[in-house]
Amino acid sequence: MQNFLNLCKSTIGEEFVLIDVEQQAPYLQDWRQRASGKALAILRPANTTQVAQLVRLCAEYRVPIVPQGGNTGLVIGSIPDLSGNAVVMSLQRLNSIRQIDIANSTMTVDAGCLLQNIQTAADQVDMLFPLSLASEGSCSIGGNLSTNAGGTAVLRYGNTRDLCLGLEVVTATGEIWNGLRGLRKDNTGYDLRDLYIGAEGTLGIITGAVLKLFPKPRNFGTAFISLHSIHHAVSLLTLAKQHCHANLTGFELINRLSLELVHRHFPQYQRIFSEPSNFYVLLELSGYDQEDSTHQQLEQLITAAIEADLIVDAIIATSIAQAKNCWALRESISSAQAKEGKNIKHDISLPISVIAHFVDDASSSLEQSFAGCRMVTFGHLGDGNLHFNVSPPIDNQDDDFLHHQAEINRIVHDKTDQYKGSISAEHGIGTLKKQELRRYKSPVELQLMRTIKQALDPNNIMNPGKIL
Amino acid sequence: MQNFLNLCKSTIGEEFVLIDVEQQAPYLQDWRQRASGKALAILRPANTTQVAQLVRLCAEYRVPIVPQGGNTGLVIGSIPDLSGNAVVMSLQRLNSIRQIDIANSTMTVDAGCLLQNIQTAADQVDMLFPLSLASEGSCSIGGNLSTNAGGTAVLRYGNTRDLCLGLEVVTATGEIWNGLRGLRKDNTGYDLRDLYIGAEGTLGIITGAVLKLFPKPRNFGTAFISLHSIHHAVSLLTLAKQHCHANLTGFELINRLSLELVHRHFPQYQRIFSEPSNFYVLLELSGYDQEDSTHQQLEQLITAAIEADLIVDAIIATSIAQAKNCWALRESISSAQAKEGKNIKHDISLPISVIAHFVDDASSSLEQSFAGCRMVTFGHLGDGNLHFNVSPPIDNQDDDFLHHQAEINRIVHDKTDQYKGSISAEHGIGTLKKQELRRYKSPVELQLMRTIKQALDPNNIMNPGKIL
Repeated sequence: MQNFLNLCKSTIGEEFVLIDVEQQAPYLQDWRQRASGKALAILRPANTTQVAQLVRLCAEYRVPIVPQGGNTGLVIGSIPDLSGNAVVMSLQRLNSIRQIDIANSTMTVDAGCLLQNIQTAADQVDMLFPLSLASEGSCSIGGNLSTNAGGTAVLRYGNTRDLCLGLEVVTATGEIWNGLRGLRKDNTGYDLRDLYIGAEGTLGIITGAVLKLFPKPRNFGTAFISLHSIHHAVSLLTLAKQHCHANLTGFELINRLSLELVHRHFPQYQRIFSEPSNFYVLLELSGYDQEDSTHQQLEQLITAAIEADLIVDAIIATSIAQAKNCWALRESISSAQAKEGKNIKHDISLPISVIAHFVDDASSSLEQSFAGCRMVTFGHLGDGNLHFNVSPPIDNQDDDFLHHQAEINRIVHDKTDQYKGSISAEHGIGTLKKQELRRYKSPVELQLMRTIKQALDPNNIMNPGKIL
Repeated sequence: MQNFLNLCKSTIGEEFVLIDVEQQAPYLQDWRQRASGKALAILRPANTTQVAQLVRLCAEYRVPIVPQGGNTGLVIGSIPDLSGNAVVMSLQRLNSIRQIDIANSTMTVDAGCLLQNIQTAADQVDMLFPLSLASEGSCSIGGNLSTNAGGTAVLRYGNTRDLCLGLEVVTATGEIWNGLRGLRKDNTGYDLRDLYIGAEGTLGIITGAVLKLFPKPRNFGTAFISLHSIHHAVSLLTLAKQHCHANLTGFELINRLSLELVHRHFPQYQRIFSEPSNFYVLLELSGYDQEDSTHQQLEQLITAAIEADLIVDAIIATSIAQAKNCWALRESISSAQAKEGKNIKHDISLPISVIAHFVDDASSSLEQSFAGCRMVTFGHLGDGNLHFNVSPPIDNQDDDFLHHQAEINRIVHDKTDQYKGSISAEHGIGTLKKQELRRYKSPVELQLMRTIKQALDPNNIMNPGKIL
């Protein structure tokens, strides 16, 4: 191994091969502090050629590689295990925006670019890169691509996969595949791009990408709406799609407890309604021309929703500050949960047509087994994606309750499966959901995935132990 | 082989195993009449289980399988070769619409459903399935998926891949993968769906799909615009995107000769301008609410285009009949070409930012080598997709000129490659472009594709000889 490390050092420079335990620490710690790993070294190559050279070395010496971007993943997918025999391949130094092509509405970037820097670069040329999520200041686009990240704009613009036209990948055998195409149509063979996207670094290392840019919305309409039930929220979604079509860019569900937690732990945010309600929807429209088009459209939608008896109350934000307050309430739910204590999290998606029934059904199953448990339900209802989290009863010690994690996961995931949903809507599998995947995927699908893994990573060195 | 055929007969019934030459004929003839093949038998299974049983038989007896839908492909990808050792697996009898889920905006269909029947079924529940192309009355959705078909609505709704949420596939080893998910978000492992989509039946047989439905547009705005050059057309596209955003659903380019041919061979269609122009754009907006929203938006766009000196003349259709006439002109180009005589066709795509330069450059190269050759240039400029066809000089015999097909392909495809375009934007590879693929794809990409093919089709029985 000393020989291997020396070759790494001569390839990328000694200062970019981190051996020191303290220097290694941030690369080995899971974002949510649930796990940590050990590594032979952290490798910090400067460019795609160096990544390829390092992968060839790793292949020769059979050293497992854990590719890493911002290390903000939520499924323990970007740190090594405790064996200490793997290297972490950090893409942080590949952080150039290579090209912006305004006429083609594309931007070509290195995989290590921070998402926020990409958003800013698009903004500077008066365009929009719509991917947006909580960790955007720390996460890198390579990680977003490798996990097919979701976020708040999926309803209108799709997941990360939908925002990417082309990739550059270092394969598991250390070759560079240049698939950096800026084309909307290209039917020349198998879709390798979508295979590497979402593969969580188990098939190769994404080193660059061609991203889609969009015209920037010129005005926004934001409404905060209270409703009796999630059934009403689903009906409101259908109505909103019919009324607002492509202008509908946000449709976030928030249940009563979620909002209560935010107000308890972040008293600086303004309360919207004097009376609490079972559910809330944060709805956003984006307009691309006249100043008040979205406001008017929003008013018409709310009127129609009142006529259809779908909603209890609603406010339309009349200032940017008010709109920001609405979004702050939504975006603070995760932190409010953390301040309240631990709970048991699920990142699931369901067909929109059954999502309300699922919530009723799963909640009542949980209540039967764990009387008094409290649901923190929120998420991107527009995409069928719920963060369906279970908090302990008020009088219960956190640790007692967390003991039941496996049972609670089982109830929620079994119900999700029964309703033909997904047990990982936007976070991926990593190591956290590997066992769950084996339970819910058909043997045929698992075998197809294993076949592809074996074919594209014959030495099994790419992020081994993740997903499969 | 007699034993194999007897087993096929006992699996699906004797009348669905076609041996008779006359019965076989329509399954063995290429859509454009450029080639025909021979088959051991045409198999017409009734359902997915039968498809799987037949594939297992074929695997056991090592009989190559050519999957076939409507057999309307344009790259000789759905007929067997002349060896006569393959079977054609026709999906025509799998033609049920399995489920429409309005609240989830999805439709689950058998692969053999005609595209037009799917469009109609969506329309009947007041929704839109936006895939639309010339052969929609004959082609099947399984073929559309296997070739990732394009068409006229890609600009707004994407290719067939973008219109599909889930698949059911019979693998090359005869197992059924049920990936019929109706989810907008699902990050549980590798994207098998996109691997089978566009694989032209070389990895498995698509037997069912979950398709996305959309709200139906309530009104359309259609304009026919004349311009001096394709450079102006590209600038108009940028302007139209800025002004009309998601309402922009069609942006078709037509060059002077294309329109001349239509008027020559279809005198029943009305002329739009008294003076000819070098290029024309057929532009369509779709509106989803008030009756006249698109008309007004279109007027504003045209005014802005005139102010920017981008266009020569423009008409906005003021009746459905007028709009239909505009589209008829566009849609008759292919038939008009056929009536005029043979020409040499290319289905290419380019980054929008270089497409005008490409057209100048490629046209002048062609003119240098083949003085007097005439360009029939048209297509989906909004997606960067051109049908860049080369007709013989007026005084040249067709056959003489067609002799130069290989040379002309070389000029056009070399230029396409130089401008980082694709040699097959929407038609696929089949057998027609197999040699071209080898020339223009990198060895790394070809090897990745071969690796996937070998892994997923270990007996090499799935549509062998196509793509790779």
